[in-house]
Amino acid sequence: MSNLKAVAEHSKVSIATVSRVINNDPKVSKVTVLKVQASISALEYKPNRVAQRLRSSKGKTKLLGLIIPDIQNPFFVDVVRGVEDYAYQHNFAVMIGNFGQDEKKEKLYLDIFQSENIDGLIVAPIHGKDKGIENLVKKDIPVVCIDRGLTEIDVDVVKVDNENGAFNAIDHLLSMGHKRIAFISGNFKIPTYIERLSGYKRALDKYGIAYDESLVFARNSDYKSGFEIANKILELENRPTAIFSGNNLLTLGALEAIHAKDINIPEEISIIGFDDMPWSISLNPPLTAVRQPGFDMGKKAAEMLYERMVDPSKKKEKVILKTELMIRKSTARIE
Amino acid sequence: MSNLKAVAEHSKVSIATVSRVINNDPKVSKVTVLKVQASISALEYKPNRVAQRLRSSKGKTKLLGLIIPDIQNPFFVDVVRGVEDYAYQHNFAVMIGNFGQDEKKEKLYLDIFQSENIDGLIVAPIHGKDKGIENLVKKDIPVVCIDRGLTEIDVDVVKVDNENGAFNAIDHLLSMGHKRIAFISGNFKIPTYIERLSGYKRALDKYGIAYDESLVFARNSDYKSGFEIANKILELENRPTAIFSGNNLLTLGALEAIHAKDINIPEEISIIGFDDMPWSISLNPPLTAVRQPGFDMGKKAAEMLYERMVDPSKKKEKVILKTELMIRKSTARIE
Repeated sequence: MSNLKAVAEHSKVSIATVSRVINNDPKVSKVTVLKVQASISALEYKPNRVAQRLRSSKGKTKLLGLIIPDIQNPFFVDVVRGVEDYAYQHNFAVMIGNFGQDEKKEKLYLDIFQSENIDGLIVAPIHGKDKGIENLVKKDIPVVCIDRGLTEIDVDVVKVDNENGAFNAIDHLLSMGHKRIAFISGNFKIPTYIERLSGYKRALDKYGIAYDESLVFARNSDYKSGFEIANKILELENRPTAIFSGNNLLTLGALEAIHAKDINIPEEISIIGFDDMPWSISLNPPLTAVRQPGFDMGKKAAEMLYERMVDPSKKKEKVILKTELMIRKSTARIE
Repeated sequence: MSNLKAVAEHSKVSIATVSRVINNDPKVSKVTVLKVQASISALEYKPNRVAQRLRSSKGKTKLLGLIIPDIQNPFFVDVVRGVEDYAYQHNFAVMIGNFGQDEKKEKLYLDIFQSENIDGLIVAPIHGKDKGIENLVKKDIPVVCIDRGLTEIDVDVVKVDNENGAFNAIDHLLSMGHKRIAFISGNFKIPTYIERLSGYKRALDKYGIAYDESLVFARNSDYKSGFEIANKILELENRPTAIFSGNNLLTLGALEAIHAKDINIPEEISIIGFDDMPWSISLNPPLTAVRQPGFDMGKKAAEMLYERMVDPSKKKEKVILKTELMIRKSTARIE
């Protein structure tokens, strides 16, 4: 079973380099080209059908499909940019379908992309069980899942370490003396929020603080929900001293509610948002936030998709990217 | 020349209603259906090829292309949502191509959409002279331009009244005693910025204040440019008392520069942003901004595209939508 990986190992270069040679990428040095070609001969490697197609369509634009849950969420816009960045370098264009967290529309875009001539698909599944995506994978259409994986089938996935991201945020608050920390979450059907909740709980555990369900609020991942839930939190009798907000739209809604009541951040309430956004540092005070590497996620997904196209027999990969806690001025110590 | 418009006039309903009847839309009342059918018979109207195709493909998903200059700009995200809103109601899916202000990529997406089976295209041209789009229009592919029109060919356009939007913003500042108002603009090759500059000048004229070129700064429409230009403005010897910022990314950059220097808004400097964004009210102080109806623009463009598909002989339309000045707390009177 002589495949691309074997060629890469034999010629001591990366799989990406082998595929560049196959695709006659002018950027590869002559020495490397000769080395790889020698390995290809030695191993009697036969580029598979897809690799041949990639080679034969050299110079022609190739097409990737990208299906995202919410184009209003700047995190997914970063993902789009990352995908485009890698794709353009490899002469692929990217067609985007936005399903707006609507299951029917997600299916619609899966159907369309399948009937169009796409070379591969990057998609954020709406659920862990997603028949539509499973079918594509079974048909050997190159697919990479982002942000969320699939439970019923082995598939390439790039996601972030949501559990640790949430843990670090809550740990930061607890270390500054906060004990009552409200969590504004999106719907717990979405795997990312389940993972963030479990990080929240683990941090409380570390400080020996009992988990209080009445401080956790889950609704849609949108502005309106953030505003309404924050209003509820601010009116609680024993008001929490800190808020952990589950995504950037929820954070914006929560901030509006806090400002409307003239409550000072961080003197009267601390707030951390999941997702660091361009506007985080322009806020007053600048927002403490969990940065997700959206751009890197998109770029990595495109790279994995490309490798999958070149070598369909490649073992499926799960890549988990780290988050980073950006400590700014919306969180403070309390006595 | 009995066309859709004639049928609409004859039956005293809108063109959109006629096309709904042709497409067997169940939402149209029976009375209206009968009335329109009678007019169709009376005028011996024959739906054109495209209309027939739309009718024959009823139930099948149809496909619109949407080409935008910058997916990072939330204004265009609003446009996308507007297009999707109308499209989904009419059983169209929307494929998005983002060209990131890059002329070559814009051309790439024009080529792709043309070779794919799209039913129509909505595009924000990178220049007023855009051969690629002109060619599509000449080939009778239904096209609607958004945000910017074309100079060399008659085409359907939806845009906002940039001149008046800028005029109202500057008029607001002048009425509160500001005389030195800096303008942070995007590249003046983009028609929207030329129009905004002319609104800026007209407002100065109204107050008898001479136009001072040294207060107008044009660079890319991005965060970094906003930050760098604002830094320059804040260090001017006779510092302007107000900033008018040309788009939302420039505004974010400018805000970061102002906060970094601990300059108070609005006590020490007033700022108005072109583009009202979800985060505008979450800022502290909330931002005074020129609201562009991005969602409405997208929706109107999709509606016009649909009418163009149904009736290719329809007279080309130019729709100019109004902006709205949202006065919040980032602007104040000076003595």
